[in-house]
Amino acid sequence: MTFFENNTLIDALLNKPVPYTPIWLMRQAGRYLPEYRKIREKAGSFLNLCKNPDLAMEVTLQPLRRFNLDAAILFSDILVIPDAMGLGLYFVENEGPKFSKPIMTANDIDNLDIANIINELAYVFAAIKNTKNELKNSKPLIGFSGSPFTLACYMLEGKSSSDYLLVKKWLYTNPEYSHKLLQKLTDAIILYLNAQIEAGIDVIMLFDSWGGILPYNEYLEFSYAYLKQILDKVHKTHQSKLVPSIVFTKGGAVWLDKLNMIGATAIGVDWTVDIGIAKKIATNVALQGNLDPALLALGDRSIIKTEVFRILNNYKKANNENISGHVFNLGHGILPITNPDNVAYLIDLVHDFDI
Amino acid sequence: MTFFENNTLIDALLNKPVPYTPIWLMRQAGRYLPEYRKIREKAGSFLNLCKNPDLAMEVTLQPLRRFNLDAAILFSDILVIPDAMGLGLYFVENEGPKFSKPIMTANDIDNLDIANIINELAYVFAAIKNTKNELKNSKPLIGFSGSPFTLACYMLEGKSSSDYLLVKKWLYTNPEYSHKLLQKLTDAIILYLNAQIEAGIDVIMLFDSWGGILPYNEYLEFSYAYLKQILDKVHKTHQSKLVPSIVFTKGGAVWLDKLNMIGATAIGVDWTVDIGIAKKIATNVALQGNLDPALLALGDRSIIKTEVFRILNNYKKANNENISGHVFNLGHGILPITNPDNVAYLIDLVHDFDI
Repeated sequence: MTFFENNTLIDALLNKPVPYTPIWLMRQAGRYLPEYRKIREKAGSFLNLCKNPDLAMEVTLQPLRRFNLDAAILFSDILVIPDAMGLGLYFVENEGPKFSKPIMTANDIDNLDIANIINELAYVFAAIKNTKNELKNSKPLIGFSGSPFTLACYMLEGKSSSDYLLVKKWLYTNPEYSHKLLQKLTDAIILYLNAQIEAGIDVIMLFDSWGGILPYNEYLEFSYAYLKQILDKVHKTHQSKLVPSIVFTKGGAVWLDKLNMIGATAIGVDWTVDIGIAKKIATNVALQGNLDPALLALGDRSIIKTEVFRILNNYKKANNENISGHVFNLGHGILPITNPDNVAYLIDLVHDFDI
Repeated sequence: MTFFENNTLIDALLNKPVPYTPIWLMRQAGRYLPEYRKIREKAGSFLNLCKNPDLAMEVTLQPLRRFNLDAAILFSDILVIPDAMGLGLYFVENEGPKFSKPIMTANDIDNLDIANIINELAYVFAAIKNTKNELKNSKPLIGFSGSPFTLACYMLEGKSSSDYLLVKKWLYTNPEYSHKLLQKLTDAIILYLNAQIEAGIDVIMLFDSWGGILPYNEYLEFSYAYLKQILDKVHKTHQSKLVPSIVFTKGGAVWLDKLNMIGATAIGVDWTVDIGIAKKIATNVALQGNLDPALLALGDRSIIKTEVFRILNNYKKANNENISGHVFNLGHGILPITNPDNVAYLIDLVHDFDI
């Protein structure tokens, strides 16, 4: 595997010694940056931006030009997979993603075709290659996919939802076809992640944004089991030591004992859990997290500092006075209202903590 | 204390032997019942209904006439306290509660006056007395309040929110005044619950609907500490054996070890946790929960049955093959789209489980 000039992210994920705690931020390439908004405008639409490998590369690299981040994450969207399956993804300003052809019937599930998705998603692999050429071996590039359950949520609802009752209607009245859909998505995601890795991705991340709406047993059956299947198969093709994986179930802190055994290299945790307590439960994996993004966006610097040091100290204490195995991040995506100066402040706090 | 003809709720809360697992449902008096919608229409507005002691009693008793529930819960709203403080509560159809005078400044917090709230809330105590006269000693009547943090959320936002960023702005930039507001609300809630108990309430419930949006440490500081203060003071005035208490933090399953020590008689849990695992952590308290309301509203009966039996069996197994200390409930309020026939079906399933 590549040894990067800045190898701290990889080392932290593999629980090796690190000179300082590495940090990257979910949605670090995004709307809080004026230079992003400029390119976004030029692209005409969010989806055009995702589909243009040159612009996607440019936007991926923007936060690294400004900040001393320890990794890049490919600029893309989790919904490009259902889009590649023909559901017609589009975005309405301030309303989020929508599908022009959401899944309405069992027949729609039978008719979903994943045979062509790697061709359809060629723009993603082109953006990865472009970005790797620019990054060279300076820092790793993270690739990602939504979890099968999270993609199914959007595909069945046709848009975002606060309660995903249409999804629950499927799970609670037609588990057979719910599983059929989830298995198709799982197969597609495995193809997609393997192709990302072949294009040059160094770390894979699975975003399970909506697993947290499920009851315990349904989480295991409809989300966890498919995440595990993806990790097993991708790590079988590409060893986890060569391509580490991170799984993040928003709201999943209550299931950490299970996530500890899912087969990922690291687990992302949101801000509801103390990371020291999390470390005591999640003994097999590295941990990623877990500052409240609202604190970074809204908080006084003195309170940001207190909270960042609490996270770093509590992790270190729980890990026998050692910072290894911790990747600092927010507990969810950075908010568009965040002042970029606060990001620079945060990165310095994290990097200087244990020096 | 009163011994009720149906004493199963009280016995379960106090961890005494019960002939079957008792059940009541959050929002059991509500929109899913056609007879409720009729009275609601007659009242003209939701708030008129809360403020009319005869209609509030009628609506409280409606689900008991239809179903074999083991308790009544007073029909009211958690926001009557800020309304009594002069914030001007009103409801907009399909948009939820709003305040005409939300808290905007620190000065607004200084000016909040709780001296008159018991007089302002006389209609609640009148409704309690009416309802107790009707119920006699058949079944217990549950009273409730929102948690200080949850009430503060609505008072600072002026309405419902998905992220409560205005609230977080207060916590993260002005913790001093955030605490001032929370302490005033705590004092008001203690007065309110004591007056409810004097009017005849048999069990008190604290709804912490929004504590779950907080990071671990902020939950302890801004929500848990005030809930604990309320429980300590109310149980000092009225012993917990005489008036049991139930605390429910939505999203709080991840903090069950802390909730176990909050000083409540019982803890409500949402559907994200397996109730058997919860029982192993929450050893000091009875547990209330935890069926997904979406399952009751949308699910096939066979799937409802499987899930209800899973909850009952997993609790019993974790509790040394004993059903005591479990109050069956949903993991959140019953959904308005629920078919009342499903409620009858659920109650029979629960009651017949261990007979």
